[in-house]
Formats: sequence, structure tokens, C-alpha cells
Amino acid sequence: MKPDKIKELLLNVQQGKMSVDQATTILEKLPFEDLGHTVVDHHRELRTGFPEVLFGENKTASQLIAIIQEMLKHRQQILATRVDSEKAAAVKVHLPNLQYDAEARCLFLESAEKSPKNGAGKILVVTAGTSDIPVAKEALITARLAGNDVELINDVGVAGVHRLLHRLEDLRRASVVIVVAGMEGALPSVVGGLIAAPVIAVPTSVGYGVAFGGVTALLGMLSSCASGVTVVNIDNGFGAGYAAALMNRIGQKDNQ
Amino acid sequence: MKPDKIKELLLNVQQGKMSVDQATTILEKLPFEDLGHTVVDHHRELRTGFPEVLFGENKTASQLIAIIQEMLKHRQQILATRVDSEKAAAVKVHLPNLQYDAEARCLFLESAEKSPKNGAGKILVVTAGTSDIPVAKEALITARLAGNDVELINDVGVAGVHRLLHRLEDLRRASVVIVVAGMEGALPSVVGGLIAAPVIAVPTSVGYGVAFGGVTALLGMLSSCASGVTVVNIDNGFGAGYAAALMNRIGQKDNQ
Amino acid sequence: MKPDKIKELLLNVQQGKMSVDQATTILEKLPFEDLGHTVVDHHRELRTGFPEVLFGENKTASQLIAIIQEMLKHRQQILATRVDSEKAAAVKVHLPNLQYDAEARCLFLESAEKSPKNGAGKILVVTAGTSDIPVAKEALITARLAGNDVELINDVGVAGVHRLLHRLEDLRRASVVIVVAGMEGALPSVVGGLIAAPVIAVPTSVGYGVAFGGVTALLGMLSSCASGVTVVNIDNGFGAGYAAALMNRIGQKDNQ
Amino acid sequence: MKPDKIKELLLNVQQGKMSVDQATTILEKLPFEDLGHTVVDHHRELRTGFPEVLFGENKTASQLIAIIQEMLKHRQQILATRVDSEKAAAVKVHLPNLQYDAEARCLFLESAEKSPKNGAGKILVVTAGTSDIPVAKEALITARLAGNDVELINDVGVAGVHRLLHRLEDLRRASVVIVVAGMEGALPSVVGGLIAAPVIAVPTSVGYGVAFGGVTALLGMLSSCASGVTVVNIDNGFGAGYAAALMNRIGQKDNQ
Amino acid sequence: MKPDKIKELLLNVQQGKMSVDQATTILEKLPFEDLGHTVVDHHRELRTGFPEVLFGENKTASQLIAIIQEMLKHRQQILATRVDSEKAAAVKVHLPNLQYDAEARCLFLESAEKSPKNGAGKILVVTAGTSDIPVAKEALITARLAGNDVELINDVGVAGVHRLLHRLEDLRRASVVIVVAGMEGALPSVVGGLIAAPVIAVPTSVGYGVAFGGVTALLGMLSSCASGVTVVNIDNGFGAGYAAALMNRIGQKDNQ
Amino acid sequence: MKPDKIKELLLNVQQGKMSVDQATTILEKLPFEDLGHTVVDHHRELRTGFPEVLFGENKTASQLIAIIQEMLKHRQQILATRVDSEKAAAVKVHLPNLQYDAEARCLFLESAEKSPKNGAGKILVVTAGTSDIPVAKEALITARLAGNDVELINDVGVAGVHRLLHRLEDLRRASVVIVVAGMEGALPSVVGGLIAAPVIAVPTSVGYGVAFGGVTALLGMLSSCASGVTVVNIDNGFGAGYAAALMNRIGQKDNQ
Amino acid sequence: MKPDKIKELLLNVQQGKMSVDQATTILEKLPFEDLGHTVVDHHRELRTGFPEVLFGENKTASQLIAIIQEMLKHRQQILATRVDSEKAAAVKVHLPNLQYDAEARCLFLESAEKSPKNGAGKILVVTAGTSDIPVAKEALITARLAGNDVELINDVGVAGVHRLLHRLEDLRRASVVIVVAGMEGALPSVVGGLIAAPVIAVPTSVGYGVAFGGVTALLGMLSSCASGVTVVNIDNGFGAGYAAALMNRIGQKDNQ
Amino acid sequence: MKPDKIKELLLNVQQGKMSVDQATTILEKLPFEDLGHTVVDHHRELRTGFPEVLFGENKTASQLIAIIQEMLKHRQQILATRVDSEKAAAVKVHLPNLQYDAEARCLFLESAEKSPKNGAGKILVVTAGTSDIPVAKEALITARLAGNDVELINDVGVAGVHRLLHRLEDLRRASVVIVVAGMEGALPSVVGGLIAAPVIAVPTSVGYGVAFGGVTALLGMLSSCASGVTVVNIDNGFGAGYAAALMNRIGQKDNQ
Repeated sequence: MKPDKIKELLLNVQQGKMSVDQATTILEKLPFEDLGHTVVDHHRELRTGFPEVLFGENKTASQLIAIIQEMLKHRQQILATRVDSEKAAAVKVHLPNLQYDAEARCLFLESAEKSPKNGAGKILVVTAGTSDIPVAKEALITARLAGNDVELINDVGVAGVHRLLHRLEDLRRASVVIVVAGMEGALPSVVGGLIAAPVIAVPTSVGYGVAFGGVTALLGMLSSCASGVTVVNIDNGFGAGYAAALMNRIGQKDNQ
Repeated sequence: MKPDKIKELLLNVQQGKMSVDQATTILEKLPFEDLGHTVVDHHRELRTGFPEVLFGENKTASQLIAIIQEMLKHRQQILATRVDSEKAAAVKVHLPNLQYDAEARCLFLESAEKSPKNGAGKILVVTAGTSDIPVAKEALITARLAGNDVELINDVGVAGVHRLLHRLEDLRRASVVIVVAGMEGALPSVVGGLIAAPVIAVPTSVGYGVAFGGVTALLGMLSSCASGVTVVNIDNGFGAGYAAALMNRIGQKDNQ
Repeated sequence: MKPDKIKELLLNVQQGKMSVDQATTILEKLPFEDLGHTVVDHHRELRTGFPEVLFGENKTASQLIAIIQEMLKHRQQILATRVDSEKAAAVKVHLPNLQYDAEARCLFLESAEKSPKNGAGKILVVTAGTSDIPVAKEALITARLAGNDVELINDVGVAGVHRLLHRLEDLRRASVVIVVAGMEGALPSVVGGLIAAPVIAVPTSVGYGVAFGGVTALLGMLSSCASGVTVVNIDNGFGAGYAAALMNRIGQKDNQ
Repeated sequence: MKPDKIKELLLNVQQGKMSVDQATTILEKLPFEDLGHTVVDHHRELRTGFPEVLFGENKTASQLIAIIQEMLKHRQQILATRVDSEKAAAVKVHLPNLQYDAEARCLFLESAEKSPKNGAGKILVVTAGTSDIPVAKEALITARLAGNDVELINDVGVAGVHRLLHRLEDLRRASVVIVVAGMEGALPSVVGGLIAAPVIAVPTSVGYGVAFGGVTALLGMLSSCASGVTVVNIDNGFGAGYAAALMNRIGQKDNQ
Repeated sequence: MKPDKIKELLLNVQQGKMSVDQATTILEKLPFEDLGHTVVDHHRELRTGFPEVLFGENKTASQLIAIIQEMLKHRQQILATRVDSEKAAAVKVHLPNLQYDAEARCLFLESAEKSPKNGAGKILVVTAGTSDIPVAKEALITARLAGNDVELINDVGVAGVHRLLHRLEDLRRASVVIVVAGMEGALPSVVGGLIAAPVIAVPTSVGYGVAFGGVTALLGMLSSCASGVTVVNIDNGFGAGYAAALMNRIGQKDNQ
Repeated sequence: MKPDKIKELLLNVQQGKMSVDQATTILEKLPFEDLGHTVVDHHRELRTGFPEVLFGENKTASQLIAIIQEMLKHRQQILATRVDSEKAAAVKVHLPNLQYDAEARCLFLESAEKSPKNGAGKILVVTAGTSDIPVAKEALITARLAGNDVELINDVGVAGVHRLLHRLEDLRRASVVIVVAGMEGALPSVVGGLIAAPVIAVPTSVGYGVAFGGVTALLGMLSSCASGVTVVNIDNGFGAGYAAALMNRIGQKDNQ
Repeated sequence: MKPDKIKELLLNVQQGKMSVDQATTILEKLPFEDLGHTVVDHHRELRTGFPEVLFGENKTASQLIAIIQEMLKHRQQILATRVDSEKAAAVKVHLPNLQYDAEARCLFLESAEKSPKNGAGKILVVTAGTSDIPVAKEALITARLAGNDVELINDVGVAGVHRLLHRLEDLRRASVVIVVAGMEGALPSVVGGLIAAPVIAVPTSVGYGVAFGGVTALLGMLSSCASGVTVVNIDNGFGAGYAAALMNRIGQKDNQ
Repeated sequence: MKPDKIKELLLNVQQGKMSVDQATTILEKLPFEDLGHTVVDHHRELRTGFPEVLFGENKTASQLIAIIQEMLKHRQQILATRVDSEKAAAVKVHLPNLQYDAEARCLFLESAEKSPKNGAGKILVVTAGTSDIPVAKEALITARLAGNDVELINDVGVAGVHRLLHRLEDLRRASVVIVVAGMEGALPSVVGGLIAAPVIAVPTSVGYGVAFGGVTALLGMLSSCASGVTVVNIDNGFGAGYAAALMNRIGQKDNQ
């Protein structure tokens, strides 16, 4: 609560416009109102256009149904990640309006009056190989639901670098590029060296032996010789999409 | 090279306006001109306002002097990171105009006609403890030389969370927040939960025992329960500052 | 055996009050009686109010039944941890009086004449997220069966630090606080900075990628920047509940 | 701020006993006053009897002098850990009243009117071998300065288990036992099986080869087959002493 | 595109032998033609005699069928690795001409007019134990389909070194030796010390405990005290066979 | 082949007592006969009384049947380790004389005229807990089949050290002690400190969290503060039993 | 104390042959006398012929002098390991009779009337390379001072396996073989396959890169495909020598 | 020894052309002569043109001098790796003809009548950055002394992929390419995708934080998505150069 609002309230009490009990009730809640914790959450959603996101992996179908039904009272968009196809089918029996992307394992509701374009430019999601697509699509759906213009470029790994160079024009037009790669995770370094936009690197658990379920790709991305690359957890497509959306809002009018 | 430019050149040859040898010379270079590889680098610097950055750790004083003298022919800004004080002193004997920040271990030249403000808003660098300052200042100097408005908030680690909440207003006004922390590296999670701007987490090698030289902080940051946090290598203040600068340019006019 | 008791015994022998054979029998056992090893165990249980605890994971239902039936001859309380629901059902066919908490995977018998309150104050169990509840409830049941007043505060992770601050009053009233968290495991640091009671941190295997099945949370807790935090093994709710019960008895009259 | 205090203040304003500006000033600060963050720290120190503790490793002698001189304005006890002998000597030139324990690497001021006994009983610090003494003494000094009765039992490692059994009586009389061990770190398991008090295990970096600088001892302690053992970071004598002091205050009158 | 070819084209345009549009079409593609990226791939296959290789693990039977049917339009040889027997059977329903090696988990088509011998000499595949055979056969089939003369020597591990010495003559006649071993992975060191040909070491995931799924074998091979040993990823029989084929072509006429 | 035997053979040839072809046949095999490689194996078995040991994990029931039938032509004892109960049942259909120990997962044939006592004294196998029994019994059966007098002492882990001390007399009478323990693996250190016989430590994969499937126990055993302890791989009961048998034969007459 | 001895004592008391005070004094000490803990140590030394061994690394020259002077009152043999040459020189100023082996870093006193031969046969110490000699000599001196006949075979690593085979006869005559190797640590597997005596493997920190300071050699040795190999900590020559001495005493008359 | 040669010898004995003693002497040596172990080494050197290579790191200057003087009796080429400049200077005082490359840390003698060209084509050594040069030059010198035509291409890392493409023609002409890279180690993947020759990847310890002293580069190279890449130990330039030389000899006339 800002000083002027506190002062206004006190004047109202002094002038008898507000009872002491009413004012007490308001101020009692002050610590949180003033710190704005709950408010933060609301503000955040309003400003980012982000739907509430559910991590579906540890939740049962009936838990998902209950939570989503509750959420639908206040929202027009829903996103639940890491929902397998069986669980999704069970949820859709009760909530047939939800869409399901089996590759991305995302269950979501995209507002009919699609969220207004929030971002400064296009967010590009790039994969090294076809096995990286599930993670890439989780990133893509996350960023799209947050009101961004997104596009997927697939299978442009470094062992055939010409495939990547062929898409150079697209890469350079993007405002943020999410690069999804497993195995040695070298693609973000090459992309980072070619463009001037921020690169978010997502290691995937694709590979065998010393790929160590994505750890090698992660370490490679963190050790990248290209500047401007930041990294998220293994297979964390959602986190990359969310961070890209936050970045893409920088400097936007509707961000103020 | 775009088709219309190729066509124009060919018409010139057909019409005798250009000799075959001249055209050959131009087209011979085409692959790189057309891919614009070297050009990329120039474009990149022009657009980002980034000085050439030298990693000083493995270079001798005389190597640094030679490289910087060469660079000064074309540039007004210089940044060399990881330069210890002894090496810096040796370089400054020959290049007395350079500035040196001993804490950040950065040797740099900041253009007199300071680089125009490039970013959308302020970049905030936040540390968990005073031991994290060297890394934080490397980030700060990098982002500032790239033309950003930057500020440092120090010593607001999670074991005294009220210190952080006290600066909530500042945190919320920033367009990008760089969070620098060692030990358990928990600060980015708390910051990420309080603001709607992107958070770049920088683990530091501060700590002992199972802090494992920053690995524990790194793993904690990557596993963060807060969304929108991306991570760079241990002690990589430069990388965080560079990435923050790229993010802060998104949607800026001078970025087009 | 204390010198005066030995002397007394010898005088009895000398004076014919005790036969040499009787005395031999007693002294033969002396090393252990004197070291009191078996005695220790009895003393320990009597003093801590702790039920015999069975680690159920590697035991079959019939093994559990046999052991519990044996134990019930001497005790009124039973606790078997890590018992899955199928095994629990099989045991309850023969031992219908046992209670089963499916979330905590604990099978137990809580004495009708509930164990007297043993501890100095309330033990609080706090979780970072809902996925940490199973481990938290194992801790809670363990401490409660040992005669403590216990309470659970759920889902107050650091990415929404206001939720935690909202419960500050409760945290400060507890005599011991068990903090259960997965992912980056940052909650014990924040709690440890807010209160003056000992904090027992329990890392959980919640998370994916570099959460490494709880290792990252564990390392973060051990590297905590807050003082007064001690740590147990990953998912070791029982160990935390047991240690909390021991701590809560310090300085209690019934502990002497 | 409690509702009744808010109400009182508002009544004062309503009744003209307090100006609106005065009330505004008070309420403006409310969030922090009400959350009592800074207050917490004061309360904590008052209640625990803990001196401010400085981690001396990353601080220069002159930094230590400045901080300690500032602290001495308000306190009678000082503790700086991880101060090597050279640095300690430099500090003592300006602050000759400080005491220095070279083995523990602790620089401290112990109040003349020694802090009142805070704890319920004696805190025992036990080492496996003589190489563990420095860490043990850091724990011992920390707990003693916090007002506890402490004692050291040395060199009772498990490869000669009779040495430990010889001290069984002492172990059983302690209210908290800190066990300090390197190499395989087995001592806390044996101690934990012999007593009913909480055991705080401190792994040390003593050992070579796969002792891995204390990691093996740490893992062994966390995997202990004895219940009631909690663990701190490698070589973290201070943390163990601090936690032991917090535990020893449970149920104490002066803790309320 | 070489300068002389560009010049020729330009002369054709100048002399009216080629229209500007035709030349534009050709030059437009130039960057890639000139870099020869796609060309590379074709050249590579032609020169190495390598079939397109499919990594079958993440592909469904129907995906494999579709891809192979497409490939068969242009090729006479096919190789799909890591195809389990069930998937192989499903593919063979539609593509009965394919062969399947269940041990090697390879599905392949070997051209009737077998590929001409490409290599300089025989490639030998050697295993330490019978459990290493699946990986060895993947290497063997890969190298054979690339037109090499290959042979398998089985079960000559170092715990019975005489078995290996018995085959010394064969080992010395080979132009490349692939050594496949799990557990401690010592065989490549012994082989490398006996012969003058390059040794490609393939660690396998055979073993238990600290064999760590092949990591111990891998580390041992990389630390080998024998010179001339190079290493591939754990269980990467294909990679070893492929590399051996490339090596065996060095200095061959049909390689120019 | 010793020089005198070679000379004798040559004299025979010279004197016409042996044909050149016969001598050629003998000498042709010489390198191996002379190195005695195959001979070694025979000698070894004769001297150690060791049956051929099959590692059953990667073999099918029919493979086991075939190998054992072949072995039975020459031997009266058989040992196959790591054979699960289903596979064992399938084998016993064809080889009903074999015995199967389900806990040890060993399938074996123990000669009716039991192997003569080979060892100097009793081999003792000691476990820390009941979960370690399967590994202990694999060691026990291995050593017994090699002709040793063996005994099992169970459940004497360090958290109740009196249980171990109770068996001190037995421990001191053994000529070799195999100690089997999971979790923190501390038992070998305590045993090693109590006796003067060699201790073979076997870490088991018993435990959870940072027990890391036996790695923590292994590291603890290798870092043991007790001298005279040597270690084998995790869960390697067979290896411990085999090594104990070799040790127990040292200095025996039938070993010469 | 055995029952019959207790009975005898009690009869003496009953019959007035011994005063109650005398008997009390004896029985008072009983727990330890009966457990024989201190006695154990003496017995152990007497039976093994082992000198007291000092780990010199963490001790100052003056500490070593004091301890050795104390030890010399009771013993004729001394062994201090890990003593660098400077420290050794400082000690020898006061104790000129001590011998120092700079390679082994051992400071020792070997009794003039050399310890009688304790072992059944010769202990052989074998190294893979010359860099392993310091560790090998620590093992050798330890075993020799314990009264064993020892011999060193050097530089017979697996990359030149003929060098090892050349010494086959010697290997087969040994009663225990200690194999010392760094890098991939493959030598114990080869030796273990050639002989019927127990093999003690000692990994050394020789090597670079992924030799990881001996960890790779250690893992290889534990994963050895040869049976009968047991392992000690990295660079633990003393432990291997000690264990070999214990083994070599099995079945010896002077061991009873 | 082949059967026909044995037969010939026996016939000679039978026919009195050779005495029994002469024949005994020959056959006595047979095992080694026949296995030809020592001979192997000579053959190997003769065939590969490889100088004896000394690993200089653990040797003193005087040891190096003694060994090299001994070697010079038989050879015209010498190579000692990992010799620092101080040690090199000390050696050159006695052996002034040796050359020293300070960057490569190699001390060597290159035969005046330079070794004849052994390899099929040029060996190319490629570095990602200038910090990788020392390792690259160790590889280069090794391969050159083995009689190969070698060339270095420097600083063509993946963050500026156009630099690499610029040298495509050179890369494609090489018969073997050694790629030296630290940090994320991505360069071998890109090179491997562009050429049809074998690629030997050498990870270097260049980088900081999670570069983990070359481990990240190593893991990335082993997980490479490009086929035909084999890997050596971290910083093992010598191993790569040696392996390249062996490969380059395949199919050469002077290799038979």
C-alpha cells in the first residue's frame, strides 16, 4: 500500500467517512497487500498473459479435472504439461473442450479470442534432431499460449551444418531463439555465433552411453564458446518457452 | 546474395557493362558474402554495441597489449575479462588510457562519448553475499559497456529474506535481473517468484565442502521451482551481462 | 557393572549368601551387562517412547506379519515404514487393528492410551510442494508415535515466498522444524533464516533432469547459507521424525 | 502488527490523539515492522545468546578489523571462523583483546561475565582421529560461546571400538553429541546406536584417495544405519556447534 | 563452385548461350552448391560405399517402413541399427527382402552384387567376452556393408591372455582392429601393445556394480597405456564399424 | 617346457625313439604348452579345488543346460551364480541333480564325496543386516564348494555394536573373514580393528538415496581406517568367496 | 574372561584365598579385559610381527620424534609412512638410527636381529610402470618389516604383455602377489588370470585426464574379469603390504 | 615358429646336422621368439617409423639425459613429451642437438635425413581456439616425426562456423583430421559432418566451471552426432598424433 493511499484511508477515518473497524479490516491485511504477494501473482499473469501452468506428471486424471474445473471459473486459457495420452483421454471425457498435443504431452485450452500478440517479434524454436521434437513442442505451446508468434525449425543439427545455414535468414529475424538438442548439445554454440538475439538452450535426454540422459548436452551448453546463450534444465521445454515469453515482452508497451 | 542482385549482375555481364573477370571475382566470394559470415560479426557488433571481448586468463600481458593496440585502430571500446592486477598493471604501462576494476578483474576502455542507451530498461545485478561481488561486477561492466543502464544490489541472500523484500520495488522495475549466488544458489528461485522479468542466474564458486566449487549452486538454479529462470556457467559474469544486454535490446528501435 | 555392585556380589559369595555358580552365571554375562548393550536398547525405547520401527521395503507381507505378531506380545505401538498399499492390505487381513496411511506408506498401531506427550513443544513439518507430502507424512507419523505434538504446513516453497511468511508465527512457535523439499531444496535456508529453532532438512527425490533424484536438493541443503540446519538422507522422512523426537526431548523431565 | 494495535492507532487518529501524518509514517513501515524481519535477527541473538559470526576465509585482516570494531560497539562476544594464524596476528595488532585458537582457526572474544549457561545439558564433541581435531574445536568454541557446557573426547575411531566403549558413560550423559570423522565416517553410526541423544555428524576432509576430501565420510553418515543422526557439510564445525546450541535450548526456560 | 566453372557460366551468359534466368537459377543455389553441402553427402556415400544408416531405437515400425521404402528408390543397401526383434518382424511383413540379425539388432539389405571391396585390408572385430558379441556384430555388419572384408574373434579377454596370444597372427594381419570389451575394458591396451595397426576401442555396458554401465570400461580405454588406441561411446558398435571403414579406405585408389 | 624335457625329446628323436612327426606335433603346441596357458587353468582348478563357475545372469536356461552337461563329463562339482528361480527351475527339469539356493541365486552340484578340506581354517561370512544375506550366501557357497569350512554370522551391524562383540571369539578363530554390508559399509572397519586375520569387504547395493546402490559402502570400505581390509566389487559375493578360498590355501600342504 | 576362570576366582574368594578388594579390582577391569580390547592390540602385534605404523603426512617432525621416542621404549621396529624427505631429515637429526627410503617415503627401523620369517612363502610386488614404484616400495617395506620374504618386479604393464609372461615362473611361485598400477589399471586382471595365489590390487594416481587421480584404475580393478582379486584404496601401498602379511600368515605354525 | 621350421630343425637333429644342445638352445627360447614379443617392438618401430617416445612429466632432467643418451646409440630420432622449459634447458646443456618446442612442451631430435614420407596423405590438425594450440602441436610433432606430412589450421571454433567453412577445401583433402577442442568440444561433430576422412577428436582442459578440466569436451565428443569420430584422453595430443600416423599408413606399400 502506497503512503498516499494509507493517508487517504486515515483521513477517511479521521473525518468519520470510514469506521475504525472497516479500516482495521483493511490494514490488518496490509502486510500482504502492501508486499503485494498475492497481488504479484495476479499482476504477473495479467502482464505476461500466462495461463496457470500445471505440472501433470505427478497428478492423477481426477486431480487434474478438479483443478482445471476450478481454474476455468476465472480463466480462458489452461496449460498442463507432462500429461501422457492415457491421462489426457481420461481428462477429456469430462473436459472435452481441452486440446491435447500428444507429442508435446500438453493438455491445454487456447482462448477462442486468441490472446493478443504480446511479444516484440517471433520466437523461433530450433531442434538438432527429430527426437528433440517433444521438448521443442512443449516450449512452442507454452510461448504461443503466452501470446507470442512462434515457429519451429526442425532437424538442423551440427553434423550437417549446411541445413542450419539454409535457415539463417529465419534465425536472424527472430527476437528470441530456443535451441533444443541432445547428445553433445552443440547446436546452441553454432546458432549463438550466427545471430544477435538471445539464445535459450534446452538440453534433451536424447542419446545413449555417455550422453548420460542429457547431462552431457547440458554441460556442453553451459560451457558454450558462444556468448549470449543461457540454459535451462534437461527436457525443460516449458521453462524455455516461459523464459522466452518473458524476454519477448521486454520493451513492449503492454508490458508497462 | 539475393536473386535480384544476382540477376542484375548477370544482366550487366550480358549487356557488357561488367567484364566476366570482374563478375567472376564477385561471385567467387559469393558463398561467404552471401552467407555473410564475416559480415555477421560486423553487423552483430554494430547492432549490439558490444565491444570486442578478450578472455584474459590464458593471455600474457604482451599478447594483450598487441591485440588491444590492433583493436584500438577500429574501436573506441575495449573489454578484457579475467585479467589479474599484475597483468593489468603491465598492460597499463603501454596503454595508460585503459581502466581497471580489480574486483571484477576487468580491463576496459569506455568510450568518452559513452555508448548510447541501448536497452529497454534497467538491468539489475543482485548478489546473495559479498563474496559474489567479483562475478557480479564482471556482469555489470559487460552490460554497461554494451550501452545499458545497470545497477547492483548486494548481499540479499535467502537466509535473511527480508533484505530481499526490502528491495522488491527495485526488482520489479528492472527489465532484466541477473542473480549471482554461490553455496546452495537459492536466490534466483526466490527472485523469480517475485518478478515478471527474465532472471539470469549465475552460480559462483563461493562455498566449501559440497558446494563443489559452484556445481551445487548451478544444479540448484537449473532445478529451480521458479519459472523464467535461465542459467549460465559457474562464475560466468561476462556471459550473464552479455545475455542480459541482448535481451534488453528486444523490441528496441535501434535493434531493427 | 559398577565396582560397588561387584563388591556387594563378592561379599555375598564370601558370606555364603550366594552360591559360586549363581555368581558365575551373573559375572559371565558381565561384559554385556556391564556395557549394558541390550539394556541400552530397552532404556532407549523406554525413554524415547519409540516403537520398534520396521523398514518394510525388503520384507514380504508374511515376514511383516510374523515380526509384528512377535512384537505385539511386548508392545502397544508398531511402526512399519515403506510398505506399499498391496502389502499393507495383505498384512491387515491378519492384523486388522493396524492402521495404514497410504500417502506416507506407513503401517502402524497407535496405542489407544496414546503415548504421553514427550516433547518440549510442537514439531512442525513443512513442505515446499505437494509432491513432498509422502515424505513429510512419514516424518510426521514417526514423531507423533514417539509422543510428540506435530503439525503439517504444506506447499510453501520459495518461488512464492509470501506463502511461507504467512505462516511465520507458526514457524516461530515450533520447538523443532522439519523442512521437506525436492528440486533445488532451498526452503530450509529460508526457514533457517527466519527462526531460532533447529531445522532438520529432508531432501526429496521430487524433480527431473539435474534434480538427480534428490541429490541436488541434498547438496543445496548441506551448502545452506543459513546456520542451524542439519540434513538427513534423501526421502528419509523417518530419520527426520526420529531425530526431531530425540531433540524435542532434550531438557524434558521425563528424559531423566 | 496485531489487529488490536492497529485498532488502537486508528482510534487515536479518529480521536485526534495522533495526527494523520504520524500515523502514516508508522503504517508506511508496517510491512517490515509487522513481519518483523529485522526484529527477528535481534530476537534471535538475544534468545540464542549467539555472537555474530564472521566467516573469515574470504576477508582480509583489515576488513576483519573494521567489522569487528563496528561489532564491538554493541556486543561483548565475537567469533570469526576460518582465520589463519597470519591473518589472526595482523588483527590482534589492532584488537589485542581477541583470543585466537590456532588449531580451530577461530578468533574470538569471550565475554568476561561469561554468557549464562543456556543449554539443558552438556554438549559432547567426539572425534574419530587426531586429524579431526581442528574441525571439532571449531564446533566446540561455537557451542561454548553460545553459552553451553562443552567437552571434547578425542581419537575414539571405530577401528578400535573399545576406546569408544570406554567412554560410554560420558556419551550417555550428554544432551547432544557432535561426532567428527573423516575417511569412511563410520563413527556416528556406532555412537548413534549407543545413545538416546541426537547425534550431529560432521564429515571431515581427512583421508586420501577415494576419501574424496570428505565426500565419502559425508555419504556414509547420510546412509547411516543408526537412527537419529543428522549431518552437516564437510568440515563445517561451526554449523554443527551452532545447531547443537539450538537443540540444547529446546525446553529451556530462558528459551521462552 | 570453382572460379573456372563460374567463369564458364558467365561466358555462356555473355555469349548468349545461356539465358540470364537460367544462370540466375543456378547461381541462386550457389552458396550450397559452392559449399557443396548436399553434394558432400552424396560424394561421401559414393566414396565410402556407406548405406544410409537409420538409428532404429526411437522409430516405430511404420516409420521405419516409410523411410526404408523411400530410401529403396535410390539405393540397394539399407542399414537400420538398434531394431528389436518385434519391430524387425513388423517391418519385414512389408519389406520381406530385408535381413535381420537378432544378436546385432540390425535390419539391413545387402546388395546382391555385393559392394566392391573398399578397404586396404581386413577389419578385425575382437571381443573380451561372449556378452560383448551384440555390440561387436553391429560393428561387423556396419563395416561389411561399407564394402570391407571383416572377421570376428570372440572371447579373448585379458583374464586368460593366452587365448589372445593364440590369435596373434590374425591380429597382426588386420589393417584395423576393433576391440569390444566391458567390465574393466583392458583388452584394447593389450591388443594395442601387440600390433601396429590402429585400434578402435568400444566399451560395452557389460558388467555390474562399479562397471557403471560401461563407464569404467570407457575410462580405462581412454587412459590406456598403449598408444594408437582411439575410443567411441559405450555400446557404439556402429560408430566403430563406420570409423574403421573410413580408416580402411585411406590410401585406396577408389578413394580418390 | 623345461630345457631338460626339450633335450630329452630331442635325444629321443636323434636316437630314433620318436619320429620327427610325433616330435613336431608336440613342439608345435609348445608355445602354449611351454607357457602353460591351458595347463595353468587345469593346474589351477586341481590345486584350488574350484569348480568351473558360470555367471548365469546373461545366459538362457538352455545355454546353461548345454554348458553344464558339457562340464559334467569332466567334473563332479558345478557352480552357476546369479541364476533366478525361474531359470533355475527350467534347468533342473533337465538336470534334476543340481541344487538351488534361492536366496544366494546359486545353482550348483556339490560332489557326494565332498571335496577334501582345502583351507587352513574356518572362513567366516559376516553380514551387517538381513538384507545382505543373498550376497553373503553367494560368498559362502563359493568358498564351501572350493573345499572350505565356512560359517555365517548374520545381522551384526555397527548401529548395535554389542551384537558384534558378542561374537568376538568366533571372529578371532577364523582364518579369513568376509564382511558383507550395505548403506554406510562401516562394519569391515570395526571387524578389521578387532581381529588379526585378513578381512575381505563386500559392499552391497542395500540402502536408498545416497547409498547410491552400494557406491557409498564401497567408498567407505576402501577408505577404512582399519588396516588389512581389502575390497571387491558391489554385490560380488562370488569374488569374495573365491578370494577367501585362495587365501585360505596359503601355506597348506596340498597347495604345493 | 572364561567362566572357569571366573569360577576359580569366586571359589578363591569364598575360600578366603583372595580378598574381596583384590577380586573387585580384577573384576572391575573385566569388561575390557574380557573383551580384551587393549589386549587385542598387543596380541595382534605379537602374532603379526607388525611394528606400530605411523601415518606421517599430517604430523610435524617434532611430533614424529616424540612418538617414535616413546615407541622405542617398547619396540625394536618402527614404520612411519608418507614422510617427505625434508621431514625425514629433521627426524633423523634426533634419531640417527632410523633408515629412510626416499622413493617409498618411509622412515623405519628394522630390527638388527631381523624379524623371523613369518609368512608361508614369498610376497611379490609387481608394478605396471616405473611411476608406480613409490607405492610399490611402501607395500614392500611394510610386508618386509612384518617378517616376510618380499620381491619387486617392475615395469611389466599390459601394453607389452610379453614382459609379464617372461616372469611367469616367479609369479607362480609367490604366495601372495601385490599388483600396483595406474592409468587403466589392467595389470591385476592379467596377473589374476595367470596364477592361483590371491592378488591384491593397488590403484595408483599415475596418469592424467580421465585417469582421474587413480579412480579409473580403481574402478577397473574392482570390475576385473579375473577372480580372486581384491582391492585397496588409491596409492595405499601400506594397506596392501599389511593385508598381504596377514594373508601370508594363514596356516602358519607361529600364527597359532 | 611354424611347424615346417620345427620339422626342419628336428630333421637336422635326426640327421646329425645339428647337435641336441644347439637345438635345445633354439627351442628353449621358442616361446618368446615364436611369440616374438620383443621382436614385435622392433618390427613395430621399423614399420611405423616411430621414434621411442618418452613421457617426460614424471622424469627428472638427469633421468631424461641418461635415457636419451642410451637411445641415441641406436636411433636418429627422439621424442620426449610433457617436458617443461626449465627441464628442457637442463637437458639441452648435455644434449645440445635436441630441439625444443616450448608451446608443445616437446623435446625432440628430428633425423637430418628426414624420415621418408610414410603416410597416404596429409594429416590435418585443427583447433577450436588458440588455447588449444599446445595440445595440437604435440599431436603435430608426433605425427611429423613418424614421417607424415602435417598441417595446422587454428582457431576455427563453432561459434564462428564460417571460419571453418572457409577451410573446407583443405579439410576435404586430408587423409586424417585431428580436431582439438576444449569447452563444449563441438568442433569434431561439425568437421565430421563435412568430410569423409576419419576424425580423431582430442578434448582439451581449456575452459572453466563445468568445462570440468576437459571432461565436458570429452563427453560431448563421445556423444557426437557425427559418425566416424573416435576420441582420445583429455590433452592427449601425442596419442592422437600416434593414432593418426598408424591410420595414415593403412594400405601403404611401405606398410607391408
